[in-house]
Amino acid sequence: MPHPTEPDGDAPTRLAVSTVIFALRPDRSGHPVLWTPLVRRTREPQLGLWALPGGWLPPAEELEAAAARTLRLTTGLAPTYLEQLYTFGEVDRSPGVRVVSVVYWALVQSDEAARATAGPNVRWVPADTLPGLAFDHNRIIEYALWRLRTKVEYSQIAHAFLGETFTLAELREVVEAVLQRPLDPANFRRTMLASGRLRETGERLAGARNRPPKLYRYDSTALAGANPDPTVRTESLRERPAS
Amino acid sequence: MPHPTEPDGDAPTRLAVSTVIFALRPDRSGHPVLWTPLVRRTREPQLGLWALPGGWLPPAEELEAAAARTLRLTTGLAPTYLEQLYTFGEVDRSPGVRVVSVVYWALVQSDEAARATAGPNVRWVPADTLPGLAFDHNRIIEYALWRLRTKVEYSQIAHAFLGETFTLAELREVVEAVLQRPLDPANFRRTMLASGRLRETGERLAGARNRPPKLYRYDSTALAGANPDPTVRTESLRERPAS
Repeated sequence: MPHPTEPDGDAPTRLAVSTVIFALRPDRSGHPVLWTPLVRRTREPQLGLWALPGGWLPPAEELEAAAARTLRLTTGLAPTYLEQLYTFGEVDRSPGVRVVSVVYWALVQSDEAARATAGPNVRWVPADTLPGLAFDHNRIIEYALWRLRTKVEYSQIAHAFLGETFTLAELREVVEAVLQRPLDPANFRRTMLASGRLRETGERLAGARNRPPKLYRYDSTALAGANPDPTVRTESLRERPAS
Repeated sequence: MPHPTEPDGDAPTRLAVSTVIFALRPDRSGHPVLWTPLVRRTREPQLGLWALPGGWLPPAEELEAAAARTLRLTTGLAPTYLEQLYTFGEVDRSPGVRVVSVVYWALVQSDEAARATAGPNVRWVPADTLPGLAFDHNRIIEYALWRLRTKVEYSQIAHAFLGETFTLAELREVVEAVLQRPLDPANFRRTMLASGRLRETGERLAGARNRPPKLYRYDSTALAGANPDPTVRTESLRERPAS
């Protein structure tokens, strides 16, 4: 890496951060689906279009801190973890100036989602039926959905969306919402119990009549010792420590 | 040329690309271990230290193209795929100016590794016994090793290091080298055959006497249709299509 003198000819490439947040909320027919918050652009370029929460990276602010700050500022959301998802840097993704965006993501529970700012410039939309967004933000959300559906362990998704403990029926409902298809309850139960990532809490769901279902928690201990690196924290969508 | 010792609040943050390459090569005792190529810095800052291949991102060059070009320029290596690994952007990771590095990685076969430039400024080192490198490059390689050891399917690793077809013994040797521990052959064989990701080629290893072992190939078809997004190409360490 040579030491910089002046930017190479043209305008310097600029760095931005953006954040994809997913929450499970009911659709019109009451079934839980994935929703994501968008922010209306109040400046050019692409004034008036909906976009991911985000902003420029200040020179003295860490990437994740900038993502958290701009998310909080635009939407009021402050999830416990933000994970780095991917860096999008196509030359022509923003008009006029090259912008490289480091994108973070988080899955949030309904209580966190309820904290979001209400107002004309913040809107939650179902993640699978997006309007046309600013820049390449449709593609970014599609990529995040693909990662969620193919890379993340089901029991971790449930932990992120539901919290510390959950029943197998709640877990299946979450996975059905993420995958957008019904699952066979008996097969699902067998697969999840065989996964080695669920632990019985010894408790049962309160308030249920007859045979209240068992409560489970996500167990990440099998992997907890495997990571020698501080960036494990940024991998917590997959490696979230049991809290 | 003088350069500031503290980041200048007005200086624009600069973008760089770096690349981590892993190849399997014998150590002194003849056992295969992971090696990575390093490049000696010929300029300040950190003149003379060993570093990952890389360089600045030009305004009109795509991220992956810049990673491939700087890798080729410094080491002569030109792997088929480069995958985006992670973006490292800590405020103080480089003296004088804020540098955000988008890091790519690849696993290469021995024929590709043999193409590397020979000379005093390029050196292959065992990835688990690194010298002190420039910037945060030790941490980057440790993170890449951790990802390799925890995130990538074994049959994909074998495909990347060994090529199209391989025996179960070759596959086990690769996985033992990556994990740095011996594996029980019978258990390994059972687990791999049950994984659903290996297909018999119908052929057997040439040149072996008595019962030549079967040749397998990595089968990614189960996941090939799952990705709606062009960035799948950048995920090919996990989703590499059978070539």
